[in-house]
Amino acid sequence: MGSSFGKLFRLSTWGESHGGGVGVVVDGCPPMIPLTEADIQVDLDRRRPGQSEVTTPRNEADAAEILSGTFEGKTLGSPIAVLVRNKDARPEAYSEMSEKFRPSHADYTYQAKYGTRNWQGGGRSSARETIGRVAAAAIAKKVIAQCFAKDLEILPFVESIGTIRANVDTATVTREMIESNIIRTGDPDSVEKMIDKIKEVRSDGNSIGGVVGCVIRNVPVGLGMPVFDRLEADLAKAMLSLPATKGFEVGSGFAGTEMTGRDHNDPFRMVDGKVRTTSNRSGGVQGGISNGEDIVFRVAFKPTATIMSGQDTVTTGFEDTELKGRGRHDACVLPRAVPMVEAMAALVLVDHMLRQRALTGESNSLDE
Amino acid sequence: MGSSFGKLFRLSTWGESHGGGVGVVVDGCPPMIPLTEADIQVDLDRRRPGQSEVTTPRNEADAAEILSGTFEGKTLGSPIAVLVRNKDARPEAYSEMSEKFRPSHADYTYQAKYGTRNWQGGGRSSARETIGRVAAAAIAKKVIAQCFAKDLEILPFVESIGTIRANVDTATVTREMIESNIIRTGDPDSVEKMIDKIKEVRSDGNSIGGVVGCVIRNVPVGLGMPVFDRLEADLAKAMLSLPATKGFEVGSGFAGTEMTGRDHNDPFRMVDGKVRTTSNRSGGVQGGISNGEDIVFRVAFKPTATIMSGQDTVTTGFEDTELKGRGRHDACVLPRAVPMVEAMAALVLVDHMLRQRALTGESNSLDE
Amino acid sequence: MGSSFGKLFRLSTWGESHGGGVGVVVDGCPPMIPLTEADIQVDLDRRRPGQSEVTTPRNEADAAEILSGTFEGKTLGSPIAVLVRNKDARPEAYSEMSEKFRPSHADYTYQAKYGTRNWQGGGRSSARETIGRVAAAAIAKKVIAQCFAKDLEILPFVESIGTIRANVDTATVTREMIESNIIRTGDPDSVEKMIDKIKEVRSDGNSIGGVVGCVIRNVPVGLGMPVFDRLEADLAKAMLSLPATKGFEVGSGFAGTEMTGRDHNDPFRMVDGKVRTTSNRSGGVQGGISNGEDIVFRVAFKPTATIMSGQDTVTTGFEDTELKGRGRHDACVLPRAVPMVEAMAALVLVDHMLRQRALTGESNSLDE
Amino acid sequence: MGSSFGKLFRLSTWGESHGGGVGVVVDGCPPMIPLTEADIQVDLDRRRPGQSEVTTPRNEADAAEILSGTFEGKTLGSPIAVLVRNKDARPEAYSEMSEKFRPSHADYTYQAKYGTRNWQGGGRSSARETIGRVAAAAIAKKVIAQCFAKDLEILPFVESIGTIRANVDTATVTREMIESNIIRTGDPDSVEKMIDKIKEVRSDGNSIGGVVGCVIRNVPVGLGMPVFDRLEADLAKAMLSLPATKGFEVGSGFAGTEMTGRDHNDPFRMVDGKVRTTSNRSGGVQGGISNGEDIVFRVAFKPTATIMSGQDTVTTGFEDTELKGRGRHDACVLPRAVPMVEAMAALVLVDHMLRQRALTGESNSLDE
Repeated sequence: MGSSFGKLFRLSTWGESHGGGVGVVVDGCPPMIPLTEADIQVDLDRRRPGQSEVTTPRNEADAAEILSGTFEGKTLGSPIAVLVRNKDARPEAYSEMSEKFRPSHADYTYQAKYGTRNWQGGGRSSARETIGRVAAAAIAKKVIAQCFAKDLEILPFVESIGTIRANVDTATVTREMIESNIIRTGDPDSVEKMIDKIKEVRSDGNSIGGVVGCVIRNVPVGLGMPVFDRLEADLAKAMLSLPATKGFEVGSGFAGTEMTGRDHNDPFRMVDGKVRTTSNRSGGVQGGISNGEDIVFRVAFKPTATIMSGQDTVTTGFEDTELKGRGRHDACVLPRAVPMVEAMAALVLVDHMLRQRALTGESNSLDE
Repeated sequence: MGSSFGKLFRLSTWGESHGGGVGVVVDGCPPMIPLTEADIQVDLDRRRPGQSEVTTPRNEADAAEILSGTFEGKTLGSPIAVLVRNKDARPEAYSEMSEKFRPSHADYTYQAKYGTRNWQGGGRSSARETIGRVAAAAIAKKVIAQCFAKDLEILPFVESIGTIRANVDTATVTREMIESNIIRTGDPDSVEKMIDKIKEVRSDGNSIGGVVGCVIRNVPVGLGMPVFDRLEADLAKAMLSLPATKGFEVGSGFAGTEMTGRDHNDPFRMVDGKVRTTSNRSGGVQGGISNGEDIVFRVAFKPTATIMSGQDTVTTGFEDTELKGRGRHDACVLPRAVPMVEAMAALVLVDHMLRQRALTGESNSLDE
Repeated sequence: MGSSFGKLFRLSTWGESHGGGVGVVVDGCPPMIPLTEADIQVDLDRRRPGQSEVTTPRNEADAAEILSGTFEGKTLGSPIAVLVRNKDARPEAYSEMSEKFRPSHADYTYQAKYGTRNWQGGGRSSARETIGRVAAAAIAKKVIAQCFAKDLEILPFVESIGTIRANVDTATVTREMIESNIIRTGDPDSVEKMIDKIKEVRSDGNSIGGVVGCVIRNVPVGLGMPVFDRLEADLAKAMLSLPATKGFEVGSGFAGTEMTGRDHNDPFRMVDGKVRTTSNRSGGVQGGISNGEDIVFRVAFKPTATIMSGQDTVTTGFEDTELKGRGRHDACVLPRAVPMVEAMAALVLVDHMLRQRALTGESNSLDE
Repeated sequence: MGSSFGKLFRLSTWGESHGGGVGVVVDGCPPMIPLTEADIQVDLDRRRPGQSEVTTPRNEADAAEILSGTFEGKTLGSPIAVLVRNKDARPEAYSEMSEKFRPSHADYTYQAKYGTRNWQGGGRSSARETIGRVAAAAIAKKVIAQCFAKDLEILPFVESIGTIRANVDTATVTREMIESNIIRTGDPDSVEKMIDKIKEVRSDGNSIGGVVGCVIRNVPVGLGMPVFDRLEADLAKAMLSLPATKGFEVGSGFAGTEMTGRDHNDPFRMVDGKVRTTSNRSGGVQGGISNGEDIVFRVAFKPTATIMSGQDTVTTGFEDTELKGRGRHDACVLPRAVPMVEAMAALVLVDHMLRQRALTGESNSLDE
């Protein structure tokens, strides 16, 4: 019940970090969308562990196999199943976890909720689960481009690591700028400082958090469903469903709460025959519906819970004890979080595009 | 499709600010819960306009009528319909809106999405829509108390208005402290400053934003559904679905991104035979599931969009123009946002309680 | 949870037969559909009690009030709430029911399921609940005509009452033929016999069942969603959700099970440039998807459970007793079942039309 | 969107008859249920082709692999993914289908709906898709037995093949009687006649339909959700979602429409301290809710569409042509339909059991 997402473009992810594999079924993908495994692999490669010197050394090729839903290179309209086998699992690294709850992990809450857990890794709480999301989103992006908005761009980037803040202009940042460095920040000047920070905390057996910013450009007007399924509400849910997230803000966000309406409102002006706003404190969403301006939001990621030093915890038998982290982990999830944020944004958008098409036959009704 | 919320305790709100009325249908409420109109009215009164000198003067009694779903003072298990008639509607105050889009309102996006809108007020984007949510949540709170957690307390409070920050300790704040003042802040020392601030911006025809903090106490362990329906993800969606919201953070939130794992992790200790954490940067949720600690989150509300001074905008005929706000509006939504935040939190919790009971027959599995 | 229907055109009905009223909220209706209360009233009048000498004498005007979702005579795209007050309720006729379960009614099962029930009438199990369905379907039919298939006709008719079978040709029957008589059969020769039969069983304090046949003409090709949401599966569910139904068959139905494939298959031929079948044992649906031929199905209605003679039953205190029916009831539900069957068919169709439009932007993909 | 079933025990099936394989993801299975691949395999073996002389010779071992959701032999509460690879696919047998629509198959409607189809077999319309359902239902049956009703029995059986009717007493038929013969009828006297009939039509290149009857014993009182999700409505949808089905009836069914209420009503009597009915024309369901009596229903299956003789049809280029069936097919689906009917019944029941547990914490409320 909790592993499915979307109303029309509906995905169900499955799989534990240590088990037969992970994957996804997408039920509701439109037919006749060109799709091959290579389309999915490119995003899985951006997400996979071991991709650079600042990510976990767990070495998974994460090769995707499309098991169903395509024929002669195009989608059939039937469910698309994608499978990625687990290869480099080392459950023996987790033997201590069978008897101790890792602090600020999901060990205790999973045990409390279900009365059991797969202690050979994080199980479902592992970031490995996001493979299914990224695979589904790769398909979603093809649908968006072919059916709804061919110029739409989803550009998340690392905005901060710890207290190091990148200087990124959401109006001008490009995918090339972001992908040109292993941090995936849009600010070349911050790259080295961020790499050094990650190496520093890692060598100390420690970890660090950060913020992912995101801009979405060329969004059709009219996406989002009042009153509960507002676009920003669904984005908030999507982002907070990612592991290690603690916050979401859109447009002016928390800083906007200090402003007055006179300073905060976005005036409308006609520009090239289109209704535009001369500022964008709304962040591209008004009344829960996209207004055609850039959608801008930020997501907070806490520091990785697994650290290589002793911490107070309790045993599964409910006695106080101490635990020292083991296994292979990211000291900072931010670089790998970028494709995850992108994935969740794409999944929210494609679903609302399909819902809007159901409602009016178009992505928006203004020009009719 | 977008006006329904919840998987098991499912509500559908309906109604425009200027029309026959507003209301809600709750489909999925358990039977045998004592429920009268008075149970609902008490929360509607906390939400209603005209309740104090810092809220809009629109004068609505907002009297709730239960049309179905109860019998001899208890719920039947059938849908509960609640109706609140609109009384003090003044559509004439909005005549100019029929031809101009109000900046940072939903006028333009509704028109773009639907090709029409009820311009006699905010329609569905009006805070008046939240009457249905508050009514449904009044029922939800009865269900929680009777079936799941009789001591559970949801305590939202005004944490800041503009740059004025209240000093509230989430561990000790009480409902009495919050409801003892018209701002609904938990800090007596801030009340006068906040009242003055609201009066100041209002007399200037301006408006101001702020932050609502919230603590939920005595939460059962085990609520929340990995991976998409994490408790914090559903809370984020719930809060961002409220009008005028721009951000959500749980536990350490954005501030936590600057910390290292060693400082951020919440150690476990056994206390009185229970698994507890000695700090609560997780905000009561780990791996998407409640851990029994206080759930703590914050919600950002932007300044009210309607201000009483001229602003640049465009006409529905797509020409540049100017618009000056009219009508009766809150200069600051924060005092009335408190019961709305409480409502959405209750709706998220009751749904997850029912889902957990479906899954295991209990609210958590640890003690079995 | 169980009082909602449809994925995109989603309705939630509410209300007991004896209480504040009954109604419906439709969430997901497209905008800009002309809609007035008169559009709804016409179908409610076909459904209402007291409409003819063969229906229950309970006298309800069943006047519909649209509370939300329309503006200047058109739908807004927001939820449409429709309210019908109960007027001629006589709960005193049911006092005995508070202590005895009526045989073949829902009294016992409601009590067992919920631990309570509204014994002042049938509560939710009353056919009165279908008011909400019929009101929602009146809206659905407007949407179908305006957005999808202006010539589509849904023509249910009484095919049999007891052992009296009407001779109706689904290829030629018209609404005028059906509505020209109070039985709503398409066969003028059977009308008197059926009226007499109903009067006969009624005067005997008895009741009688029957079959409603239905043909749907001018259905777009391509409606229905493999594999679970096949069009016939959703029709079956829709029909079996009506009170007093015991069976559903489409096309050749149970009789087709006795045939061989060679006799049963529907050959394809090109006719006027369109793919047609030269027979229609499929009943207009192949592989769960409409093929453009007439959709033909039948629905079995059992005899009304309330009869005016003593029957064995048990008390709510679990002792054997006897009960004699009271209150005002239809001796045969068939004439009033016709608009209910029509309503459910319209609700299934509009939902699949919206789903198909979401999927491909059109109601079918063949001509693109 | 259409390949998912259930509200709480939610399955998504995927896979075409000719492709990487078929399978299912179950999202919402309770934790701590003992489950191994052998539990699933036993039902897949009852469903698989090539199992006897009266089924298609396509030879598939249909070996199930559980990819996720279990740990140390028990369910985790996380999604359970089951994969069955396709082995004996012979797409070359279908080359003619790429250019011609098979009569009374899904070829034309799939092409019309999606603008494409996998013509190398039936794609999603193949009975091979039901592997995912049968696998999910094997899990469902374990949940039912462990959590809700350990003595519950779902016993479908072949009631007729063509005009040959078995004489089966639903009150006494046993699984042993049904599984003791390759027809899976509960009447030993009919077995040979039915086998002969199937061989006869097959040797003639023809096919034949039939009816599956089903009795479900020891059903808890209180399952089913008024008003749309009545137990019989969900059973009807479940059964009509199976390939080749044309009808469904519960209890007295179509025959009951000829009865009067006095003859049809099921009187209540106290028996061994329980509320029982002395007849069961209701078929175990009253007001949409199980009453504790045997649930009895019947499902109509049409003759297999693929026959080995020339038939009129049209080409994908829309010209009249003729087509002669090829490939390996069942001349009669009934023996293999039995486990499919059982599967769908189990899926409906487990979902309603979980929903009832959510609502009241118990499977029924009567004894509290």
